[in-house]
Amino acid sequence: MHPAPEHMSTEEFRRHGRAVVDWVADYWDRVASLPVLSQVAPGQVRAGLPDKPPETGEPFTAVLADLDSILVPGLTHWQHPGFFAYYPSSTSGPAVLAELLSAGLGVQGMMWQTSPACTELEQHVLDWLAGLLGLPDCFTFAGSGGGVIQDSASSAILVALLAALHRASEGRVQTEGVDRARYRVYTSTDAHSALEKAARITGLGTAAVRFIGTRADSSMDPKALRTAITDDVRAGLIPVMVMATVGTTSTSAIDPVDRIGPICAEFGTWLHVDAAYAGVAAVCPELRWIQHGVADYADSYATNPHKWLLTAFDCDACYVRDRAALVGALSVVREYLRSNVSAADTVVDYRDWQVPLGRRFRALKLWAVIRCYGVEGLRAHIRHSVALAQRFATWVAADDRFELMAPQPLSLVCFRLRGADEPNRQLLQTVNASGQIYLSHTMVRDAFTLRLAIGGTATRDEHVTAAWDLLSSTASGLLGD
Amino acid sequence: MHPAPEHMSTEEFRRHGRAVVDWVADYWDRVASLPVLSQVAPGQVRAGLPDKPPETGEPFTAVLADLDSILVPGLTHWQHPGFFAYYPSSTSGPAVLAELLSAGLGVQGMMWQTSPACTELEQHVLDWLAGLLGLPDCFTFAGSGGGVIQDSASSAILVALLAALHRASEGRVQTEGVDRARYRVYTSTDAHSALEKAARITGLGTAAVRFIGTRADSSMDPKALRTAITDDVRAGLIPVMVMATVGTTSTSAIDPVDRIGPICAEFGTWLHVDAAYAGVAAVCPELRWIQHGVADYADSYATNPHKWLLTAFDCDACYVRDRAALVGALSVVREYLRSNVSAADTVVDYRDWQVPLGRRFRALKLWAVIRCYGVEGLRAHIRHSVALAQRFATWVAADDRFELMAPQPLSLVCFRLRGADEPNRQLLQTVNASGQIYLSHTMVRDAFTLRLAIGGTATRDEHVTAAWDLLSSTASGLLGD
Ligand SMILES: Cc1ncc(COP(=O)(O)O)c(C=O)c1O
Ligand SMILES: Cc1ncc(COP(=O)(O)O)c(C=O)c1O
Repeated sequence: MHPAPEHMSTEEFRRHGRAVVDWVADYWDRVASLPVLSQVAPGQVRAGLPDKPPETGEPFTAVLADLDSILVPGLTHWQHPGFFAYYPSSTSGPAVLAELLSAGLGVQGMMWQTSPACTELEQHVLDWLAGLLGLPDCFTFAGSGGGVIQDSASSAILVALLAALHRASEGRVQTEGVDRARYRVYTSTDAHSALEKAARITGLGTAAVRFIGTRADSSMDPKALRTAITDDVRAGLIPVMVMATVGTTSTSAIDPVDRIGPICAEFGTWLHVDAAYAGVAAVCPELRWIQHGVADYADSYATNPHKWLLTAFDCDACYVRDRAALVGALSVVREYLRSNVSAADTVVDYRDWQVPLGRRFRALKLWAVIRCYGVEGLRAHIRHSVALAQRFATWVAADDRFELMAPQPLSLVCFRLRGADEPNRQLLQTVNASGQIYLSHTMVRDAFTLRLAIGGTATRDEHVTAAWDLLSSTASGLLGD
Repeated sequence: MHPAPEHMSTEEFRRHGRAVVDWVADYWDRVASLPVLSQVAPGQVRAGLPDKPPETGEPFTAVLADLDSILVPGLTHWQHPGFFAYYPSSTSGPAVLAELLSAGLGVQGMMWQTSPACTELEQHVLDWLAGLLGLPDCFTFAGSGGGVIQDSASSAILVALLAALHRASEGRVQTEGVDRARYRVYTSTDAHSALEKAARITGLGTAAVRFIGTRADSSMDPKALRTAITDDVRAGLIPVMVMATVGTTSTSAIDPVDRIGPICAEFGTWLHVDAAYAGVAAVCPELRWIQHGVADYADSYATNPHKWLLTAFDCDACYVRDRAALVGALSVVREYLRSNVSAADTVVDYRDWQVPLGRRFRALKLWAVIRCYGVEGLRAHIRHSVALAQRFATWVAADDRFELMAPQPLSLVCFRLRGADEPNRQLLQTVNASGQIYLSHTMVRDAFTLRLAIGGTATRDEHVTAAWDLLSSTASGLLGD
């Protein structure tokens, strides 16, 4: 008989666990002093790692030591208070502790039966969140719909498109596949590339995607949408899905869902609303206007608590109005996955709501975050971020050398030095190389534009002030004034 | 100015963190005494949760209290030593601690630049694992290929199919979409439903999937495969991908990759090898025969360290021989995601290797597990599981009332009471209702068959003995002897 391997005992786990908790707390205490954007060269991290794995087990302390010496210098610190790039991936104490619980429990929630609490907590917390965002009952399990946690907004877009194709084909895609020549999907030229990726994954191909022009504020032009759909329908094509964006990646532009919706309704087109970054702002009643029209018209809606709601990647809250369409698109049942309760249709089996089969217990972290912050705490975080962005935008606006490149409805500020692109590229490169702040860029009306996205958990007043000081003084150096 | 919300301080995090570490250790200490299969009724967990989220924040201790009273009774305990259903989702101390580190760091590794160490550790550890499994260099970054962590084997199958379609169409699918009428994919009747799901997701539809018959041992019949492909090619169809399985879900049957491979090579068909459960067994040299042919013929290969290699869901190690095909299938670049290093093509951007854009730092846990167990420890775990299964199978074989329904090359035993299905259904239901063990079932040659899958971290000799005692005595009760 082969003996069992030596597993870490629970006593050792307690000991190492305390050390890791302290490591994380120490990391948060010192992260502001680390260069936010990693300064390593390609290959440098790998060069520090041994060629071969160890033959015999090493203590966990060796892992921690190498984490410090080899890995940390190779990290770009998303939890650094000076991280203003992309959109934040905000985490928090409750989220991290809940991830530890989830890992410790090690349950796999592919079906209700494989851990009822994993499924029911997810249903429950997503119903809570729907209420917090002001979404109507039809997106909850009280109605015909419901929510599911996807790993990302990209996956939410993919499953929405699959549900839309299922509905448009009355289920025929399931066996027959996709009629790429007939189906069309629509989104704005400023929408996230995830729709293009989804169109490729689902076999439509990018030729099936119509990019609709935008208005001055970078939001989708509903008139242009109507024209595109009308033309296509006249040509015998089927408008399967429109993806509207509430808070685009580039400038946080907000598509007029209330005007796009009626067009979708008229043509029987599935409306998916991608609110990956911005949607969670609707926890604040005064910001709910961003999703005007969603309640009446959206067939599916997704927002990422892992971006701006303190919940730690990965947690995308994805809602559908008609859960039957989604399950119809994704359910494949085999004998080894049959269960009595599933057959009786009294429970939700989330395997049929997503691409993978297996799934982690991610609802725990959303539950922990909502409970430990409370509704007030969540609102305070959003309001604080918006106020900081507002302040930063005011400084930009007051400085003649700079211009704002887009409205700032939420916590993203898009700005640049007036004039040519090159000084802006240099400005970005210089401040990012400083290690103090990290910003990303985009193109707005063909001009190279800097993006400062606020919403990280650790970001306060003083960090935004310091960011402006650095940008301003660097600009002075570059412009020679 | 809106004030920042009250975040959990790092001092509080240390305090609650210690409590959570202890909670997890206590859970592992007592999990064997809990009913492995949750006994709650549908809706019972939700009924215990308040209708509305709290307005003001609660302490983390309240979360832990409700976890104990409301959620734990609703869990099916995958880490219970009596969990023998499906395949295990084994975790371990090092994996859980690494998940805590990953959550604490909160980095998002969509691109090399967004955390070089997140990408390079993943490349490195997957190269290590390739070596451990005896996969040749062409599947590593030293060659033309490389590995990536997917959330699941289902996602690995999906991306393999996308790469196969990309190659077969010379990239035309990207814009034109999938020619559902021309492409065919092949797998055995015993393969996992994930291929069917992938065929639906990619727009091929299930009509494009040819299910190839199996031989007496439930492995794919290569002659039947050749016939099917030959017929299709003669009819003008294109055989895009064959999925062979190393260790089927139902019975752990092993398809003859060394005979399937040459057929794929002859017809230019992509060969994906789904070794979700069994592949990791190849860390033991004496078990490497299971992937005979993979080195010579597979275009892609995936195995789940989260199933039988102590690494905690989610961790699927997915390898491709030609990384260009995968990246070609999945890369969509936009300005806001451009970076200098990516453009220079000197780094790997994993966003182009997967369906989602964002990604967690999952390589940490695989790294921690390999280091803390060492190669010897990993082998000991596999060997121990196989030996336990062997012993169980011996008992079944020696009992005239029972029959073994499939070979037992690894750690899964498929067995049943001789005769009708009904006593077997009752046997399964009775032992699962006991709370002591949890088995799942399958159909083998149309007979209801019980599956006992070993490989959980906590499962020892005495648990397998107890399982057999319970099964045997329950059978006695049912059969009235
Ligand atoms: C508007 C929008 N949609 C989708 C995404 C993709 O997010 P994910 O990584 O969750 O797929 C993003 C990411 O920033 C986004 O801003
Ligand atoms: C052979 C095989 N392939 C694929 C899968 C799907 O696994 P996942 O949940 O990782 O998608 C399984 C699950 O048991 C399996 O046994």
